[in-house]
Amino acid sequence: MKVIVIGGVAAGMSAASKIKRINKDAHVVVYEKGGYLSYGACGLAYFVGGYNDDPTRMIARTREDFEKAGIRTFLHHEVIKVDALNKVVTVKNLQTGELIKDTYDKLMVSTGAGAVRPPIKGSDKKGLYVLKTYEDGLILKEEVASYGIRNVVVVGGGYIGVEVAECMKALKLNVTLIESAPRILTTFDDEIAKIAKEELVSNGIEVKTGETVKEFGGFSSINEVITDKETYPADLVIMAVGVRPNTAFLAETGMQLADNGAIIVDRQQRTSINDIYASGDCALVYDLVKKKNVFLPLGTSANKCGRIAGSNICGANEEFVGMTGCAALKVCGLELGRVGLGEKEAMAEGLLIGAVTIEGRNHPAYYPGQEKLVIKLVYEKPSMRILGAQLVGKEGAALRTDVFSVAIANGMTTKQLGMTDMIYSPPYAGVWDAIQIACNAAK
Amino acid sequence: MKVIVIGGVAAGMSAASKIKRINKDAHVVVYEKGGYLSYGACGLAYFVGGYNDDPTRMIARTREDFEKAGIRTFLHHEVIKVDALNKVVTVKNLQTGELIKDTYDKLMVSTGAGAVRPPIKGSDKKGLYVLKTYEDGLILKEEVASYGIRNVVVVGGGYIGVEVAECMKALKLNVTLIESAPRILTTFDDEIAKIAKEELVSNGIEVKTGETVKEFGGFSSINEVITDKETYPADLVIMAVGVRPNTAFLAETGMQLADNGAIIVDRQQRTSINDIYASGDCALVYDLVKKKNVFLPLGTSANKCGRIAGSNICGANEEFVGMTGCAALKVCGLELGRVGLGEKEAMAEGLLIGAVTIEGRNHPAYYPGQEKLVIKLVYEKPSMRILGAQLVGKEGAALRTDVFSVAIANGMTTKQLGMTDMIYSPPYAGVWDAIQIACNAAK
Repeated sequence: MKVIVIGGVAAGMSAASKIKRINKDAHVVVYEKGGYLSYGACGLAYFVGGYNDDPTRMIARTREDFEKAGIRTFLHHEVIKVDALNKVVTVKNLQTGELIKDTYDKLMVSTGAGAVRPPIKGSDKKGLYVLKTYEDGLILKEEVASYGIRNVVVVGGGYIGVEVAECMKALKLNVTLIESAPRILTTFDDEIAKIAKEELVSNGIEVKTGETVKEFGGFSSINEVITDKETYPADLVIMAVGVRPNTAFLAETGMQLADNGAIIVDRQQRTSINDIYASGDCALVYDLVKKKNVFLPLGTSANKCGRIAGSNICGANEEFVGMTGCAALKVCGLELGRVGLGEKEAMAEGLLIGAVTIEGRNHPAYYPGQEKLVIKLVYEKPSMRILGAQLVGKEGAALRTDVFSVAIANGMTTKQLGMTDMIYSPPYAGVWDAIQIACNAAK
Repeated sequence: MKVIVIGGVAAGMSAASKIKRINKDAHVVVYEKGGYLSYGACGLAYFVGGYNDDPTRMIARTREDFEKAGIRTFLHHEVIKVDALNKVVTVKNLQTGELIKDTYDKLMVSTGAGAVRPPIKGSDKKGLYVLKTYEDGLILKEEVASYGIRNVVVVGGGYIGVEVAECMKALKLNVTLIESAPRILTTFDDEIAKIAKEELVSNGIEVKTGETVKEFGGFSSINEVITDKETYPADLVIMAVGVRPNTAFLAETGMQLADNGAIIVDRQQRTSINDIYASGDCALVYDLVKKKNVFLPLGTSANKCGRIAGSNICGANEEFVGMTGCAALKVCGLELGRVGLGEKEAMAEGLLIGAVTIEGRNHPAYYPGQEKLVIKLVYEKPSMRILGAQLVGKEGAALRTDVFSVAIANGMTTKQLGMTDMIYSPPYAGVWDAIQIACNAAK
């Protein structure tokens, strides 16, 4: 069996590795457009921010590891066309320009998503960066260290934008974060996002919400960012306004794609075309709360779904259980976590809901370091099934998200989780954990 | 309806509060032998150790709060006899010696457990302490601060013994911990308990396992502890060798008790006698993994079961889902957590099992502060149902215990939990959390 894997980061290398573990005789070839394999893109902001100065730490497994496992890897090789009828791909060697053709029995598409670069006036000027690939990280780290960089504008207040803003501040730069939506971190509900915004502001980051960037001013290089409301000096701009699936090369295949170009897959990671599988940021992913496919490009499901695709390519019949939408981030001194549906998101699904927000504590007052822990819980009525949770606090807020995720994955009600045994130890949690207090406050 | 609650700490006050919330006309009277209500006994070691110098912080709700809620509370009042036929209790006012009789419609027994004081030679000498009640904490804190206290011997290497040893060391005393079993923390498996022991030793605490205390030497005051192997200088000895249910006063009722004197209850918290309920350390508690009652005196289930007893006293029909045996503790710089069954414990239940221990990491190497996180997983074969987990590591080990607890409560298999969505954020967790890595390592 010959398998071609297009894209060698999370989903692709998970699939490739799984295939070789199951079937050591399988012939597995990986074509990766970039120069690096299997890296943790979520580490990029922290690398640029100097929390870690060794980029190789972001590499989960090296190219040598993969080659040793019998996986052939080609870097700087972009697949530009797929002929699904004849099972042939056309690959461009980006270093020589040479075009080659290769055949497959099974094809794995894991090309990920690319950073969106909106057509804002002045986008062609120097000084505009994105942070999605390993190479983006190497370039940006060098740039921020250049002489004369003082004012940084981050456009986009999602996970990456917020993390990058914090990391730029850690480098003692002046940072302005601009978000066109009325709030940052739109995957969190208002009251939680508000706490995050206040934390950024109190750490010296200017946060501008409800402002749209209209133009990047300056001659050949950007020196200011002009919004619909104000003008900000900028020596460097980082765009973090989302990603778009890298699926243009599939156009001629007739493969079923979602509106944004993401590949539609079933829970076994099969596409609409025989013998072609897809996972990761280039594809939709099954959401077990909404009970349907959604576009949620996260490394966690890329790894899981890639592994499942690998098994099924080898003839297994595995099905992805679905993600709950678990995510966390650090916002200066705060931890934020979210899982499942927010209040409006749940109503958008047509669910009758209840919601409760409690201000609990991470652990009892009789141990030093007690801190506030805010939990918002969304649940279905009248079943009281937990639909989502959002947490913000100091130490321990992020990890508690996983407790809700397991509960949601099991369809637990607020009452069931509220009575489930949890640890009680003064340094870590109270006799009723904040999780249980939130559950028991649900009416 | 007149309800008498015997014992006003965790289970008792949970029941009393619940009763008044459901039925504000209920006449609720609490008799508490000690001088304090509703305190978190797990905070005692940290109070004595000076992590917290305000004992009132251990009090969850004050006596005034309860009186305001319409609950009549009597301190220093010990119920010495129950006449279940006539529904009359005999109460001794410990301050005046006066005996009174009181009648009830429903009775809640929540007398807790008392520290075991084995009849070791020399136990009558001064300098021997236990740490179970609020008063014990006040006394011990004063004693350890006395002139001339240098050498402390802690007898018993369970949760309390280990915590107390650490807290004594925090006071810069010389601490020796003596445990008669071959290892400390016997609710953990060998390899985990071993890591805890090494941590205590490397923090300057002498740990002696497999040694039995034979005598407390000295004239009127203890000045040495003599074991079957050695003699240790001791200015102060703290006994932490377990607890025994406070149920002697029930002897004449004919109530069904377990071997150790714990009250046998059903999952609705009913005893064998009509209209008498019991919860907390004086009673057994339902273990949902073993699917039977066990003696596991913990504040978490005391609170939950007390609340359920309160509801059922008011006519509800609530059933305790059962505990998973979730517990955590700090051992100097380490966090330890455990839930469900250990390896030998599972085999003792007649279960065919598999076990796997992994050395994972708390978060990726590309964020500062990566630390080891050891997880031992025990699962049933061939179903792969998760039976138990034990964790040891730095930040985040303890809280991850709750994730396993929710998984166990839902009967999840290793594969199911291994594929459940969890957070991925460089400061908190990797793209495959150590929990998932442990699950996916199970064969």
